Amino acid sequence: MTSAAGGSTARASDGPRLAVMVNGLPGRMAAATAEEVVHRGHTLVGEVMTGAGMDASYAVTPEHVVRLCGPDDHDACLQRVSKAYDNIMIVDYTHPTAANANVSRYARAGLSFVIGTTGGVVEDMMQAVNDVDDVYAVIAPNMGKQIVAFQAMMRQMADQFPTVFQGYTLSVTESHQATKADTSGTAKAVVKSISDMGVQPFEVGDIDKVRTVDRSVADMGVPEEFVTKGHAYHTYRLTSQDGSVNFEYQHNVCGRRVYAEGTVDAVQFLAAIKRSGKQDKRIYDMIDVLRSGSMS
Amino acid sequence: MTSAAGGSTARASDGPRLAVMVNGLPGRMAAATAEEVVHRGHTLVGEVMTGAGMDASYAVTPEHVVRLCGPDDHDACLQRVSKAYDNIMIVDYTHPTAANANVSRYARAGLSFVIGTTGGVVEDMMQAVNDVDDVYAVIAPNMGKQIVAFQAMMRQMADQFPTVFQGYTLSVTESHQATKADTSGTAKAVVKSISDMGVQPFEVGDIDKVRTVDRSVADMGVPEEFVTKGHAYHTYRLTSQDGSVNFEYQHNVCGRRVYAEGTVDAVQFLAAIKRSGKQDKRIYDMIDVLRSGSMS
Repeated sequence: MTSAAGGSTARASDGPRLAVMVNGLPGRMAAATAEEVVHRGHTLVGEVMTGAGMDASYAVTPEHVVRLCGPDDHDACLQRVSKAYDNIMIVDYTHPTAANANVSRYARAGLSFVIGTTGGVVEDMMQAVNDVDDVYAVIAPNMGKQIVAFQAMMRQMADQFPTVFQGYTLSVTESHQATKADTSGTAKAVVKSISDMGVQPFEVGDIDKVRTVDRSVADMGVPEEFVTKGHAYHTYRLTSQDGSVNFEYQHNVCGRRVYAEGTVDAVQFLAAIKRSGKQDKRIYDMIDVLRSGSMS
Repeated sequence: MTSAAGGSTARASDGPRLAVMVNGLPGRMAAATAEEVVHRGHTLVGEVMTGAGMDASYAVTPEHVVRLCGPDDHDACLQRVSKAYDNIMIVDYTHPTAANANVSRYARAGLSFVIGTTGGVVEDMMQAVNDVDDVYAVIAPNMGKQIVAFQAMMRQMADQFPTVFQGYTLSVTESHQATKADTSGTAKAVVKSISDMGVQPFEVGDIDKVRTVDRSVADMGVPEEFVTKGHAYHTYRLTSQDGSVNFEYQHNVCGRRVYAEGTVDAVQFLAAIKRSGKQDKRIYDMIDVLRSGSMS
């Protein structure tokens, strides 16, 4: 395990080396994020907060084994890592039922964090940050920067050009692993934007949800290895009334790496904001992270 | 042929009935626009400016036969229609070599116009409009509103999120009828925007230009009847370095109707601007037309 020594002076590939605590291991998003933290040359904090009944340790890589601390140990765990590492940044991919309590803990401990855990009460998270000084946060339900950018552009297109697809018909197909029961949140947001551009009535219930191996492979072209492991394929088709004009937008993701990359981008963004002394606010989202690309 | 009587009081489907002169008949874009003028219930002006050696008349529909006036008759033609019709609006789909002289004529005659003819000197067109009073113009190289909107959003995405596709590879395929020698201008503009989002180096020369029947049908899915008649199919693919994320954008157009629709939208927009008495400028483009959707 990498020690904290020199953590704030050695340089990682994308800026100063940071100490990153990835809470929620051994969950899949936490695991993908921890791998990306190592990949970028940051210091992976050696113990993390996790749920009840987890194993005592988790090997992110053979060289990076992290101690898993159960709920009874969470406060003490945060105290230990605060003492052991300089300028620690937290990532939270835990559980909907734990998200708000965790955020309150981070804020009280004066620790800045990036949270991708969904299902918590965002207003309460923001309040917890605003109740203390010098804590910064990125709160984002989707860390996939490219997908977030696409979603934002569709929203802006609707706001600027509210009749551009007047009379067009829309069809939407999304494919995910069979364990995902609900409709894609991204698809729902994009459908709302496209509906605001004048297309013929389209409801969320009209989204074609693909959850079977056969259709994921044959209709959507998902590679077989990702059909059950985890994928997010989306196709939006717009057709003019006479059929002479067709638009198609696809965003297709296999696995979790793009979200892990976005999460570590958010960590680096937040650390840079904190260092800069020029913060116009303390709570950010992925649009802020994306915009910051213009600063680099 | 419809008479000018009542032209400014009878209502067309999208606002007041207008008298529209479509110069450039019997050219294909002019013909498609004249059909759309009739389809919307506007008055088609009964004589138009055209090049040398054209036939003496052209039937837009069996009921709408338009007299074609050659170059020697252009000034007299404009004088006649100015007297015969109220609130005339001009559309110009003529020839690159005629565009600037035509615009000067329209401006001197106090006639507002929409010009989709490319190849002229736009600065000189703007000067001609600014040299006179009370003349308004839409000058636009592409009247396809949805394609213009897509192109604008890609530009905005690059300006706002300049690193969003860092490290991604791009591939671009465009298919047009074999008579189109040059690379799609839309594809070139979109490639510029995507290149500004951090993708790996991609040159205009890397655009795959499809100009054969076989590939247009098999690779791009162009309907056979439009392979030679006229189509504009574009596919942009973005792939992350590890291959786990793919984006695809397509805009596929058969025939000329979408451009004709956009042209008549521009005519209606310009007439509304002229009537409104609230003009902040006198020269507009398709983005202005698109934005005006929010006013209706």
